[in-house]
Formats: sequence, structure tokens, C-alpha cells
Amino acid sequence: MSDQQVDAVLAAAIVRRHEPGEVVFEQGEEASWFFILLFGRLRVTQVTAEGQQVIVRMVNPGDLFGIAKALNRTDYPGTATAVSASAALVWPMSVWSDFVAQYPGFAQGAMETMGIRLQEAHTRMRELATEEVERRVAHAVLRLGNQAGKKEKDGIRIDFPISKQDIAEMTGTTLHTVSRILTAWENGGLVVSGRQKLLLTDPHRLLLIGDGVVPGLL
Amino acid sequence: MSDQQVDAVLAAAIVRRHEPGEVVFEQGEEASWFFILLFGRLRVTQVTAEGQQVIVRMVNPGDLFGIAKALNRTDYPGTATAVSASAALVWPMSVWSDFVAQYPGFAQGAMETMGIRLQEAHTRMRELATEEVERRVAHAVLRLGNQAGKKEKDGIRIDFPISKQDIAEMTGTTLHTVSRILTAWENGGLVVSGRQKLLLTDPHRLLLIGDGVVPGLL
Repeated sequence: MSDQQVDAVLAAAIVRRHEPGEVVFEQGEEASWFFILLFGRLRVTQVTAEGQQVIVRMVNPGDLFGIAKALNRTDYPGTATAVSASAALVWPMSVWSDFVAQYPGFAQGAMETMGIRLQEAHTRMRELATEEVERRVAHAVLRLGNQAGKKEKDGIRIDFPISKQDIAEMTGTTLHTVSRILTAWENGGLVVSGRQKLLLTDPHRLLLIGDGVVPGLL
Repeated sequence: MSDQQVDAVLAAAIVRRHEPGEVVFEQGEEASWFFILLFGRLRVTQVTAEGQQVIVRMVNPGDLFGIAKALNRTDYPGTATAVSASAALVWPMSVWSDFVAQYPGFAQGAMETMGIRLQEAHTRMRELATEEVERRVAHAVLRLGNQAGKKEKDGIRIDFPISKQDIAEMTGTTLHTVSRILTAWENGGLVVSGRQKLLLTDPHRLLLIGDGVVPGLL
């Protein structure tokens, strides 16, 4: 997109801030807005008919989200909740079709966003279908490290509050199993975990476990 | 899109036919073409690093597929194989960006296709994460019935050759488990299954099993 086009798109936006724990939009709510995350982090969840919650993805700075219109829906398919102090650019959904019509760069960008999500969804689907739980958990925390990791002296810190329950909801397992895995990994020197935090101290070995090259610790 | 725009898009296409079992494109191959299926049915698979095959989705008539460019990739992320006699409209990938720039309706259509896939991937991810295998298999065959079902006197026939191995690769389980489930369902009057075929004789009860409203038969 040209500078002029970017200016026109930005002029139509407002900025909204969200405190940790605040809900940005809810599953089933009429989709009146779409967003780009400026800073912070969001968790997008879906609840099954039986009330089980699944984390569909994390939203990272720069990500386009809440784009129900692109999915040809009138409601949001999931709930977005801030997990750390966040701010987003917000547009009314009514401008979506105009943006797509006027700015081919916008349409291509939106498609790429959806493409990345689709590939991540296929990867997670493949993992759920073919990998034992310890491998899935290894891949999940490495993915978080890639998308939201902060390099520190002792390893890669996941840069937002993350609980064992969150990891369970990302990998289709129970809190109990995640606890057992993290304890085994902590004893093995692979991670340091605490309430709402996770430091990957040996990402290389985690990758070997995730890829099934070396056996898990559990 | 206007009639004129549709004419221009169609003028740039060629038609290619594929026999059952023929590979349309392969995972990792340079993505030189994109497609719309005219008739027939394709299976899209991905192979994991360990060589396990997963069916990512089925391609149905009218579907846009092989759109690596929309995903910002240069290679195909999966392998597409014809499962029945098929024909597709084929465009060189080099026209993709022009189509997006010139025809907003094309971009919106491509986004909707990706949106539908993304929602299906999230549904399958949720099923894999939260449902026992019999429920996943029920949801998988019902989805096939919706997308590729032919109403007959005795029920809904899946309108392409489908094996128990295919169902296993769609649901992240083994051939052995799918066989046991289909035998139990056949004895219970829910399906009639045979080599490469499947008739859903009681889709309503399958839905109740899939949704966990009534217990499974296994």
C-alpha cells in the first residue's frame, strides 16, 4: 500500500486500550468492529457445546483480528481477551468492503493473515491427530516462544502471563497432565516454570522431543 | 463480480481433467497454478516429518484450491489427489496478484474460501482436542455427508470412494479403531459400510452421538 493509502486507512481508525483480563469481543456477539493489535497480547478462545474451552490462538502485535466479515460471518466466532495490557487500532466493520475494493494491498494483507492462521491451524490439527501429548506440549510452548518469546540470559521467556491451564487448552489435554510434564521438564533442566510464567531453558532439546527425535521425559 | 469481469477471469483459464488416483499437485512442489474444481472430488493430504499421513480436507465442486500465493508461499503445503473423475479450471499463479488488484470480488471470494477452511480447521482442532474418538468419527462422517452427500432412499450416501483408512486419517485415529466403530454402527443400524463406500442410514442418531447427547455404541 502507498503512504497515502496507509494514511487513509489509519484516519478511519480509533485506538482502544484493554487491561489484562478485559474481554475485547465475545463469541457469538455481533461483529461490529475489526482490529489490529498495536501492543500487548490477546488470547482467542472458543467454547464447545459442552462448555469445554479451547485456546484457538494468541494474537500478537501487528496481527489483524476480529475479521468476521472476511469469513462472511456477522458474529465473532471466538472470544478475545487481553492477557497483558494491550492497545488495538479499531475500525467499524462497515468499512471492510470499501477497504478491500479500494486497496488491493489490504486484501492481499488480509489473505496472508488468514493464510498464516490456516497453516497454524493445520499444523495443530496434524499434531493433535498424530502426536503423543508430551510432543504436542513441546511444540505448543516452542510456538509460543517463537511468537511471543523474549530472549534472556537463561533462555527464552514467554512474554505474557501463561498458566498450565492455558497450555492444556492449547494442546487438548488436562491440567494434571501439563503439570506432570512441566515438572519432569523442570527436573530435566528444560524449562523453569512458575505461576503464570514459563522460561524455556533448553529449546533445542524441547524441539528434539517435539519432533520425536529423542524420547520424552514423562 | 460483473459478467464482464467473470468473462475476463474465465478467458485466462484452461480446463484440466484428472482420473481417480491422479495427483493434481504435490506437497513441496513449486506452486505454479491455482484451481477451481468443476466436478469430481479431491483429497488434500499432508505428510508429517515422520511419514504419517493426515487428510487436511476434501475439495468439493466450486472450491478454489492450490492458492499458495494467498498464503504467501511459493510451494503447495499439501498434496491434492483426485478420488473420483474430476475436472478443474486452472490459472497460472502469475495472474493471482492482478486478479486481486483488478477484481475486489475475486479477493473477497478468495477470503471467504479461506474463512470457511479456517473455521473447518478450528472445528476439527476443537474436536481433536476435546472429543473421544467415536464422537470425532461421527462428526467427520456427518461433515462428509453435508459436503459430499447424495440423498438416497435408505439414507445419505458419501458420493466418492472412501476407505476406513481415509476416515482414520481425518480423525487422528487408527484403521483398527475406525473398523470397530463402523462395525458397531452397522450392527446398530446407523450406517451401511463397504469397501470404499459409506451410507449414513441414521444421521440424526449419529449427530446425537457426535454431540455427546447419547452415548456411543463402542
